[in-house]
Amino acid sequence: MAFDAIETPFAKVDKIIGGSATYVAYAASNFIKPVQQISIIGYDFPEEELNALRARGVQTEGVEVVTDQKSFFWSGKYHIDMNTRDTLVTDLNVLEHFKPVVPDSYQGSDFLMLGNLSPSIQLDVIRQLKKRPKLIVMDTMNFWMDIALEDLKKVLKEVDVLLVNDGEARQLSGEISLVKSARKIMDMGPEFLIIKKGEHGALLFHKNHVFFAPALPLEEVFDPTGAGDTFAGGFIGYLAKTKDISYENMKTAIIMGSVMASFCVEKFGPERLKEITKQDIDARVNEFVQLVNFDIDLV
Amino acid sequence: MAFDAIETPFAKVDKIIGGSATYVAYAASNFIKPVQQISIIGYDFPEEELNALRARGVQTEGVEVVTDQKSFFWSGKYHIDMNTRDTLVTDLNVLEHFKPVVPDSYQGSDFLMLGNLSPSIQLDVIRQLKKRPKLIVMDTMNFWMDIALEDLKKVLKEVDVLLVNDGEARQLSGEISLVKSARKIMDMGPEFLIIKKGEHGALLFHKNHVFFAPALPLEEVFDPTGAGDTFAGGFIGYLAKTKDISYENMKTAIIMGSVMASFCVEKFGPERLKEITKQDIDARVNEFVQLVNFDIDLV
Repeated sequence: MAFDAIETPFAKVDKIIGGSATYVAYAASNFIKPVQQISIIGYDFPEEELNALRARGVQTEGVEVVTDQKSFFWSGKYHIDMNTRDTLVTDLNVLEHFKPVVPDSYQGSDFLMLGNLSPSIQLDVIRQLKKRPKLIVMDTMNFWMDIALEDLKKVLKEVDVLLVNDGEARQLSGEISLVKSARKIMDMGPEFLIIKKGEHGALLFHKNHVFFAPALPLEEVFDPTGAGDTFAGGFIGYLAKTKDISYENMKTAIIMGSVMASFCVEKFGPERLKEITKQDIDARVNEFVQLVNFDIDLV
Repeated sequence: MAFDAIETPFAKVDKIIGGSATYVAYAASNFIKPVQQISIIGYDFPEEELNALRARGVQTEGVEVVTDQKSFFWSGKYHIDMNTRDTLVTDLNVLEHFKPVVPDSYQGSDFLMLGNLSPSIQLDVIRQLKKRPKLIVMDTMNFWMDIALEDLKKVLKEVDVLLVNDGEARQLSGEISLVKSARKIMDMGPEFLIIKKGEHGALLFHKNHVFFAPALPLEEVFDPTGAGDTFAGGFIGYLAKTKDISYENMKTAIIMGSVMASFCVEKFGPERLKEITKQDIDARVNEFVQLVNFDIDLV
């Protein structure tokens, strides 16, 4: 949970609520309650933002408040294509000495989402759980592949689903073909691999199977920040709701993740995620069905 | 119809049969016979290649043979990602003074595919037809937008379906968003627009509707040359076979185009297209169905 400053070719915002855990929680809370949040914030994090999360069934006992430090701050600027961005500022602040503690009341959870953070912290959380969750989903990024690859490989052995983008899949595997990348990465541990391709959709790999979920072609991408985390939140939220971790159900969960991400990019930060209703979500699910639905006869 | 020399990061070939019309004909002939070819070749074009096409139901009365000039020659080199390439040589040869003549025996065709060539030649072919085809599909490229934009806009007014890639759609419309691009381009004439995104699939736009067809994630892309033309051939071949030019049927036709393109890239030039059987096509259609097939309930 953090503050972001974001500049796009169309608009600019100096300070807005962000952070992986924020986006995951907003997205997942449309499908499942409670969401048990583990994070760290500083004295500057507004109480009303915590209350807004609590009102949606997000528990915050695991959110550590550091009274003499600021919250994590990230600032970035998007290029004209909105697919790439430059990081301008990263102030770790409270995150520098973050040692998450899993509250007793969180023990026994069936679904664990590990947001993008140092692999050693991700592993630490897994090790604190007395009962292994039914499903562990992990997000990561190229930064950790650069500086903490061995730790990252340890976490990979413990998780069921890995989420990365196409460039990261190629970096982690050393393969250009995403099909070959997927095979190598699944050999490292996770039984399921999701490769996110931004505006080009996402691929789900499992054994020899592959499923493709498109991204909704949007008139305007206002701010892509948090879209990947929102996708992850929709994905695991839907799985937790349906309690079904089969490959077949993961296909649907990926569509739900894409649906949630398509809302996220419509406004700055998690603003749009705060507004949407069940009806909005259902309507967009239907748009996704229309987008890929076809009847076919063999030749 | 032409000769190509192709270099990829994995292999190299000095002289192989190529050209838009060749790929379109090979792909379309899996769905419909006859295919009535209009093209131009030189004295060096092998008779056995013409016979191979004829054996598949491709009529060649409209293929002009110039006895004192060479066939069109193109040479290109693909970058490591196989998505981009440099053109090394373009020898126009017979193409320099190409003035296609539509044979009488071709008059009355219901489906016209205009391969990527100068807009004025494309328009000339349309104007020679005594009866307007039920469907005119047009391919083009950024080169013609650079040097013959006014002519290109004239052809756009006469066609039903335009095929371009994402970069070309953006160039033609001046819009970054593909949704906005599509609207502007459809205002220029074509009722249907297909935006090809290579390994990221293709989008079909019509009025306010959009359909997305993925590309099959492949282990190995051996040679992408001709994939776009093969896609076009599968698309129009399927429409001609089913005689149904509705938006609904075009969705299926795009899947068929993607299926054919997925074969094309497996070997050099049209080699793989010459081998495949009805069974191969059916099996791959099923892979596409699996790739995007999901069951969904509303939230």
